[in-house]
Amino acid sequence: MELYDDERLDYLLADESMQIIQSPTAFSFSLDAVLLAHFARIPIRRGKILDLCTGNAVIPLLLSKRTDATITGVEIQKRIFQMGERSIKLNGLSDQIKMIHGDLKEMLPILGHSTFDVVTCNPPYFPTPAVTEHNENKYLTIARHEVYCTLEDVVKACKLHVRPGGKVAMVHRPGRLVDIITLFRKYRLEPKRMRLVYPKKDREANILLIEGVRDGKADLKILPPLYIYEADGSYTKEAEDIIYGT
Amino acid sequence: MELYDDERLDYLLADESMQIIQSPTAFSFSLDAVLLAHFARIPIRRGKILDLCTGNAVIPLLLSKRTDATITGVEIQKRIFQMGERSIKLNGLSDQIKMIHGDLKEMLPILGHSTFDVVTCNPPYFPTPAVTEHNENKYLTIARHEVYCTLEDVVKACKLHVRPGGKVAMVHRPGRLVDIITLFRKYRLEPKRMRLVYPKKDREANILLIEGVRDGKADLKILPPLYIYEADGSYTKEAEDIIYGT
Repeated sequence: MELYDDERLDYLLADESMQIIQSPTAFSFSLDAVLLAHFARIPIRRGKILDLCTGNAVIPLLLSKRTDATITGVEIQKRIFQMGERSIKLNGLSDQIKMIHGDLKEMLPILGHSTFDVVTCNPPYFPTPAVTEHNENKYLTIARHEVYCTLEDVVKACKLHVRPGGKVAMVHRPGRLVDIITLFRKYRLEPKRMRLVYPKKDREANILLIEGVRDGKADLKILPPLYIYEADGSYTKEAEDIIYGT
Repeated sequence: MELYDDERLDYLLADESMQIIQSPTAFSFSLDAVLLAHFARIPIRRGKILDLCTGNAVIPLLLSKRTDATITGVEIQKRIFQMGERSIKLNGLSDQIKMIHGDLKEMLPILGHSTFDVVTCNPPYFPTPAVTEHNENKYLTIARHEVYCTLEDVVKACKLHVRPGGKVAMVHRPGRLVDIITLFRKYRLEPKRMRLVYPKKDREANILLIEGVRDGKADLKILPPLYIYEADGSYTKEAEDIIYGT
């Protein structure tokens, strides 16, 4: 497998059964993606899963460990899309995972509407920065900021592609919970499960996991909190199990 | 102090400095009210606080321990309103706490609009039951079910009476979070602080505390979780401190 520029090959799980191409300047997956892949409820034997803002395909790769459903990833940045494609090939998963290079706002002719059982998404978290405000490179800015799509664009695309009764799972910042809930309800993706992630005991939540059901009945369950670190800075048992896939 | 029917006199705090009239058939305060009184951020020296759906005035009584602000309680059920009035007199707090018997939907001529610094509310949690569905007595049904007011009526009244920049603090069930957030935003009470209460470790949340700021900027903080019980069924240290006011 050829690597370009500053790319490197990382193990994705502790059992070293899966590798992923990463780049510190283009795209490296975060804890958030790993938590979303663990949080999402997906069909096991068959079905269709869509991952929007898929980056280097980290979520499709992780999901493939626990399902035989087909998984489609959509990524707007060509270089990052290609990193994902190569990682999928590298792991021998080209039959199960398909990458699409394109804009999530323009997927209707390609993916059709209401065709997926589950849609996952780890979208950009931050509003579009003024040009002078950020010193990140272009790849990271697009992955992290709402440059090519707003939160509403993302929720709208989730709604468009998930089937009635299907699930949409998203990871975001707790500060945007009100926006997310308002938009989920606007697009009839009724929030049904939510989990808050706290860096450690006695801290405010810093990651939000939420799942909506298209045309679902109103009734939200708030799962037990997830703590990432113990007081001494080591991973909690639960975080370790999720991160290392044990 | 005269007690009627099945009323009894309970201590409200561990230091026995405050008493409250309770009745198992008309109204007894719940943990939820105690948690809301603790959660709400209130002015300390002066100001005006309003408590809607005040019941036997448990929240005004608790708040009076930590503020010199005047507190107004509104209760629609005459018998429960009178229990609150007598409890206030019993504790010598008639100068600080004023009870109003009436419908929260009709308080504009009495309370004016935008006149309070903080509004608190522990509203009825459940949709209106069909007549055959419940075997509670009338007092408890009205306190627990949306008989006289819907959640939207409550949020609307909070918005009407709080001043711009003032706070609205509410306790409810997590299952209604989506409704609450949608209505808070509709009435421009931007949710700013939220805390989830879990009966014990590894359980789903069962109480929701939320605070909105009228005309506030969008940015929600999710506070550390509060656990009520240890695995052995005893109170956690934090719950004990809140409940016994130590």
